[in-house]
Amino acid sequence: MRLQPRFSPMQTITPQLVREAAERIRPLARRTPVMTSRSLDDRAGLQVFLKCENLQRSGAFKIRGASNLILSLSPAELARGVVAFSSGNHAIATAIAAKHVGAQATIVMPEDAPRSKLEATKALGARIITYNRALDDREAIARSALSDTGGTLVPPFDHPMIMAGQGTAALELLEVSPDIDALVVPISGGGLLAGCATIAKSIGPGIRIFGVEPELANDTALSMAAGERVTIPPPESIADGLRAPAPGLLTFPVMQRHVERILLVSEAEIRATMRFLLERVKILVEPSGAVALAAVLFGMLPLEIESAGVILSGGNVDLDFLKTL
Amino acid sequence: MRLQPRFSPMQTITPQLVREAAERIRPLARRTPVMTSRSLDDRAGLQVFLKCENLQRSGAFKIRGASNLILSLSPAELARGVVAFSSGNHAIATAIAAKHVGAQATIVMPEDAPRSKLEATKALGARIITYNRALDDREAIARSALSDTGGTLVPPFDHPMIMAGQGTAALELLEVSPDIDALVVPISGGGLLAGCATIAKSIGPGIRIFGVEPELANDTALSMAAGERVTIPPPESIADGLRAPAPGLLTFPVMQRHVERILLVSEAEIRATMRFLLERVKILVEPSGAVALAAVLFGMLPLEIESAGVILSGGNVDLDFLKTL
Repeated sequence: MRLQPRFSPMQTITPQLVREAAERIRPLARRTPVMTSRSLDDRAGLQVFLKCENLQRSGAFKIRGASNLILSLSPAELARGVVAFSSGNHAIATAIAAKHVGAQATIVMPEDAPRSKLEATKALGARIITYNRALDDREAIARSALSDTGGTLVPPFDHPMIMAGQGTAALELLEVSPDIDALVVPISGGGLLAGCATIAKSIGPGIRIFGVEPELANDTALSMAAGERVTIPPPESIADGLRAPAPGLLTFPVMQRHVERILLVSEAEIRATMRFLLERVKILVEPSGAVALAAVLFGMLPLEIESAGVILSGGNVDLDFLKTL
Repeated sequence: MRLQPRFSPMQTITPQLVREAAERIRPLARRTPVMTSRSLDDRAGLQVFLKCENLQRSGAFKIRGASNLILSLSPAELARGVVAFSSGNHAIATAIAAKHVGAQATIVMPEDAPRSKLEATKALGARIITYNRALDDREAIARSALSDTGGTLVPPFDHPMIMAGQGTAALELLEVSPDIDALVVPISGGGLLAGCATIAKSIGPGIRIFGVEPELANDTALSMAAGERVTIPPPESIADGLRAPAPGLLTFPVMQRHVERILLVSEAEIRATMRFLLERVKILVEPSGAVALAAVLFGMLPLEIESAGVILSGGNVDLDFLKTL
């Protein structure tokens, strides 16, 4: 499916866009805590600063991007509403931001999306269009929802305003911990990493940037190695927020420019990290939210790095899953 | 067992002692975040500010009191070391504070204390004396440890410096959220509540103070009703941090003066609150850490209260326990 973003690919993210986003999203996104832990530092062998987006409103960083885009729309655009496609955190984030500005949100969700997320999205006043993953043509539904409403698409990552919004997580982290040697960020489509890398390199050009993916969802690692975007079959990782099969058209060149290396973590390392965060730091992250720290805990950063900022991207996980840890 | 506190009962806690404690403990205790959650406010029907002592160093508020007492000792006293009796969070807190000032800690622990806590305490350089709950005379061991070393006893709650240290949790909460109608605090021996109530009433005399106990550990509720300290048989609540069988000699009159009512929560309410905090707020609390919020979530505050500060006292819980939620 290719839906036209509001910005052309030439208009990309800048540090200034991230700074503007930080002002814009203030009414909607929470300034999340940056946590530290001696037992974590001891185990990792370096100083770690955790940016806790699992404690963000709606339980994930997604509200930063969705609200940045939606709060930048004109009254005329808002009157036509917004459209998003998501089975998860991005759906709820879009619905929250739309409700805040009084715009109608239309969310296209697979009919087998988690019941709790369908209900939560509906409770926020969004119109839900469900489709059958096997039978329906998602692209046709997408086109139809957009043309019916004349609304604005809120893509999950591939848009300068989405990237800029996500980048505010790193901006806040660097306001608290400006002297980090490295920034470590999980990757799905790359919006969070592109935004965070852009602002981090602007504030501290020496900050080394690492992206992290599950071994089972290594599309960005493959793409970086190939020098072009590679699409993989639908990934099966427990990190269900990181299942985008390819990096974005707009996010990929930003990652190519700023990211030193893509680190890959195993499913077992993700589980162990979730368990460590619960036992020692007393916070709950979802599998996707644990991958960046997993790379740090399991010694994948270069040895000379003495301090790292790590984005814990979200905390929305079914408690039944915890039994498997 | 009656061991002589360093302060006589006449010397009680004052707001000034709490303010001094806040300065004194800064090198050792973390300033924990105050968290809010819309889903929590919706469910509780009032605005709730969570003081997250589960995110405190060593996973519980205990470090505040132990470090306040230990950091106030003279070099001569420190040279003789400190002694504490605890199977849990207070042991580790005492060991951390003693290590910080280079004093030898002697911790008297039951031999069936959790292995992890014994190991953690030992790893901090403490000398451990174990005893058999059934066979040994704890009082004799206590006297012997104190007379052998000439050290200072660090009691878990019944001491002005311990109460004052614990009160810094409320001081920090009120610096962030000064306009709360009520403060809700869990009770074991009453040190946390006595300290928090003292500083809260000094900052906002109109702030209404509520203590919370498990129904199965209702010694303070019985004592308040009787107008004198009542001792109950060893409580069986899952809130293992709240099993003191009676309020303290020094804490009780402070609670009598400041506390409007003791609220009682069921074991099921404690479990449901732990689950709510994990699912919706993404943080882990131990059963003792959930009791104050349980009273709020289950509608036990007077209806006219529109905002409340709630102390989540700790987060040290075995992950296996989560399966029972």
